[in-house]
Amino acid sequence: MLGNFTYCNPTKLYFGKDAVENLRTELKNYGKNILLVYGGGSVKKNGIYDRVMTILKECGKEVTEDAGVMPNPTTHKLYEGIARARACQADLILAVGGGSVCDYAKAVSVSVHCDEDPWEKYFLRFEEPTCAIVPVACVLTMVGTGSEMNGGSVITNPEQKLKIGHVFGTEVFPKFSVLDPTYTFTLPHYQMVSGIYDIFNHICEQYFSGTDDNTSDYLSEGLMRSLIHSSRIANLDPMNYEARSNIMWTATWALNTLVAMGKDTDWEVHMLGQAVGAHTNATHGMTLAAVSMAYYRHIMPYGLAKFRRFAVNVWGVDPAGKSEEQIADEGLAAMEAWMKELGLVMNLTELGVREDMLDGLVKSTLVMETGYKVLTPEEIRAIFKESL
Amino acid sequence: MLGNFTYCNPTKLYFGKDAVENLRTELKNYGKNILLVYGGGSVKKNGIYDRVMTILKECGKEVTEDAGVMPNPTTHKLYEGIARARACQADLILAVGGGSVCDYAKAVSVSVHCDEDPWEKYFLRFEEPTCAIVPVACVLTMVGTGSEMNGGSVITNPEQKLKIGHVFGTEVFPKFSVLDPTYTFTLPHYQMVSGIYDIFNHICEQYFSGTDDNTSDYLSEGLMRSLIHSSRIANLDPMNYEARSNIMWTATWALNTLVAMGKDTDWEVHMLGQAVGAHTNATHGMTLAAVSMAYYRHIMPYGLAKFRRFAVNVWGVDPAGKSEEQIADEGLAAMEAWMKELGLVMNLTELGVREDMLDGLVKSTLVMETGYKVLTPEEIRAIFKESL
Repeated sequence: MLGNFTYCNPTKLYFGKDAVENLRTELKNYGKNILLVYGGGSVKKNGIYDRVMTILKECGKEVTEDAGVMPNPTTHKLYEGIARARACQADLILAVGGGSVCDYAKAVSVSVHCDEDPWEKYFLRFEEPTCAIVPVACVLTMVGTGSEMNGGSVITNPEQKLKIGHVFGTEVFPKFSVLDPTYTFTLPHYQMVSGIYDIFNHICEQYFSGTDDNTSDYLSEGLMRSLIHSSRIANLDPMNYEARSNIMWTATWALNTLVAMGKDTDWEVHMLGQAVGAHTNATHGMTLAAVSMAYYRHIMPYGLAKFRRFAVNVWGVDPAGKSEEQIADEGLAAMEAWMKELGLVMNLTELGVREDMLDGLVKSTLVMETGYKVLTPEEIRAIFKESL
Repeated sequence: MLGNFTYCNPTKLYFGKDAVENLRTELKNYGKNILLVYGGGSVKKNGIYDRVMTILKECGKEVTEDAGVMPNPTTHKLYEGIARARACQADLILAVGGGSVCDYAKAVSVSVHCDEDPWEKYFLRFEEPTCAIVPVACVLTMVGTGSEMNGGSVITNPEQKLKIGHVFGTEVFPKFSVLDPTYTFTLPHYQMVSGIYDIFNHICEQYFSGTDDNTSDYLSEGLMRSLIHSSRIANLDPMNYEARSNIMWTATWALNTLVAMGKDTDWEVHMLGQAVGAHTNATHGMTLAAVSMAYYRHIMPYGLAKFRRFAVNVWGVDPAGKSEEQIADEGLAAMEAWMKELGLVMNLTELGVREDMLDGLVKSTLVMETGYKVLTPEEIRAIFKESL
């Protein structure tokens, strides 16, 4: 742990079957007016909406609904949410959904009492809130982003063709989140495995950087091993509570700042994937999966010691009698085999990328400075091309 | 993660060299009157007292000192601390020291505004505070107990010959803790390795229980691997910042509730060790080390699958061609070799236990119900005898 750091994560998590019942206790800490935020119709189909609404009513709350939060929440939707929160004088914003819904709730929470334009202040100028913040809580129904226990919020401005994330400080973290693994049972397989790869890549982005010896990397290895193990079970048996609960818990700890403490991080795969997302609207986790193998094989020589360690500690590669490169190669091969086993999208063509789009993708890709290799535009192009 | 649980840990951690400078910002959140709690003279010898005092004075605080907190803080000392905190109307209790000093500060914090006897209320009746709690903060100078980020507080009543721990809720957790690994450099080798084994055993106590597949156990394996690795470096080179920083961070996460989430835990080694401590006043970590091998070899058949996993995942035992018992045995042998390498006390005789004390030790040993084997008095006696 060579770097100095500050760690603080005050979010309270209620985990397990029927954890939503804890809402009854928590709601006592907040005023009468609740802005209930959710996405499309899925929470109505699976009964979660009804259950939450029943509890809210039984607790005597006045509920204002803010439905229709899209997978990539837009500035237009944000302005609408702010207006609703102001009109009902929201005492609490309750997000029921996945990472997008929770991200959106946080963006509303810092904007209700803000006199400036929130897109410009938070997402273009990356300023911190200077106004009162409406508390946010979350009932999680999809796993992957870790938004239930962090300050992350990603908003898209369709006119400016910009999708920007702001990582807010602890005062914007959800006050509490409800994590019931059974709420993830009804998710389609494509979405489930896409989320699983998003989690895995969150860990990789923090693991594949830095040369120091760091407890955070050992924690990352533990999370990766748990995720690989449970993903194989859930892939065949999506209703397996034990596996789905481990995946849910792993997702939270993969991106709540813990495994980044005291070390450098990369995040280049997310930059490549987000460029693909901006040009295709493909599912986030699949964009990461499609570019990962080309990216990691490309940077492996620059971070060979860590890739060797990844092979042995995460994938159980036997190092006896092999060169460092062979060991590292076998690790990446094991990772690729696991990704195929889950049924992830392993190429960009399947996501709608054509060769004539590569120049645009390269232009849309931000270059991170702290990975094992700072990519040149030519390298980015080569990685995209290899991923076709 | 088969069990339901609630996770919340609001303590803010400032980690790294010169992290104590963050006191200047944090102190603004509290009133003028500071109760400065510390132990013997070590913080004066190594300069930490002077540095903290300088910052407190420069921040305009009124400081009341409460020195002389002993390794096992007594009820007498607790009453003295309560009187001092009341007299100075403490707005913040600042603990500068190791786990004992921090434990003691928490006990004072819940007692200042309490009308009942704190020993009876908190340590005999295990009640929660019903009064206002004076906030606690910590500048850590020894690692092991995790008290810097949990609600644990152990107090000894010498008349009643009782040493009892109460794990308080999050409102009693330190508001913030300063973790500067360089503050641990001057600790004698005996104390350093004793603390390292205390950390390792905290993880074992949470790992060796339960049959379900749980992300917590994967995190535990990561922490153990990091600790084993860094302890070997620190054992030869105590001034190695990287190793000492990893050990400090591992200690915090070994006992801040994370790796116990959603699973059963054991804690029988601590019960055996605390009985030894009550009869000999031996250093806590060494009492754990002296009884561990006999205990774990005794319970291994009842938790064979977990001991096999421990051997392979923590100690890198090659399972090929071996029976489950052989693999598990090799894991415990590797653990024993590591303990000897560190120079831990591996028998009770060296700690002053004689065979005629065994009956007394057995009587003093609490029996936990959730480990792999609920011990009978005969088994406890046999474990102590084997540990002589």
